[in-house]
Amino acid sequence: MLTIRPATPADDDSLWQIMEPIIRAGETYDFPRDTTRAAALAAWLAPGFQCFVADDGQRLLGTYVLHPNRQGGGSHVANCGYMTAADATGQGVARAMCAHSLDTARAQGFRAMQFNFVIASNHRAVKLWTGMGFETVGRLPGAFLHPVHGYTDALVMFQRL
Amino acid sequence: MLTIRPATPADDDSLWQIMEPIIRAGETYDFPRDTTRAAALAAWLAPGFQCFVADDGQRLLGTYVLHPNRQGGGSHVANCGYMTAADATGQGVARAMCAHSLDTARAQGFRAMQFNFVIASNHRAVKLWTGMGFETVGRLPGAFLHPVHGYTDALVMFQRL
Repeated sequence: MLTIRPATPADDDSLWQIMEPIIRAGETYDFPRDTTRAAALAAWLAPGFQCFVADDGQRLLGTYVLHPNRQGGGSHVANCGYMTAADATGQGVARAMCAHSLDTARAQGFRAMQFNFVIASNHRAVKLWTGMGFETVGRLPGAFLHPVHGYTDALVMFQRL
Repeated sequence: MLTIRPATPADDDSLWQIMEPIIRAGETYDFPRDTTRAAALAAWLAPGFQCFVADDGQRLLGTYVLHPNRQGGGSHVANCGYMTAADATGQGVARAMCAHSLDTARAQGFRAMQFNFVIASNHRAVKLWTGMGFETVGRLPGAFLHPVHGYTDALVMFQRL
């Protein structure tokens, strides 16, 4: 049974276990690949960010953050980032976190959710977000230097809530 | 004769004179309209941002900032923000600053420049950036709450360097 709950300081080790291989691979996020644990946690738990974890009762299978994408006149649009544990992919963890984030954002009064930088070669994510109701509203040509594929497009995805 | 040069700490008062009416109006940037002088200057002069000013020899007519739009695999794309003094619009100040920023970004090895949030109702800016070679690569529906026009689209604009 997967429970999605707010992260606590006791989750820091588990968060880093999820984040480190994703950051080191450098294929799906723009974190520098040599980002330290402290810098990664500081970014993921930044002021104004709400951090949630997907907990199966024994360990964390994923984490996501939710925050306003912009401030002032742009603060009604939410942004989220999701990370699934390397050995827990393909089990619906990201889907469950995304559904939870959409519900949470809606309940908090956000009017839309925007992803700023979905790497086009991350087909699994693009397919999942599209299935969850996101539209691709922008394509940034060659905006991401992928360690394997080289310069790769990034997508802007958007959904009204 | 308009000179574009790096900002110095002595420019802070002039920067705020340019920024304050733009922030208070809230029509073109997502700064909260009640942003303080200290917060505005901290944002405009954030670590990693290069700040330039357009100086006519007597006073500053505009300012812009240049920085990587993202980090890691996205750090080859620059982002800029431009502000022209309220009483100096229509004199080519923004155009001169944009041309300077494109040259500067190119010289520093950036491969592209991206604007993340051009308010669609800011026709003057959209027309100018288009004329300067930017393509609209994304449209964010209703992503900006304009104080006069209400929910307004924002554009993502992009140019390879």
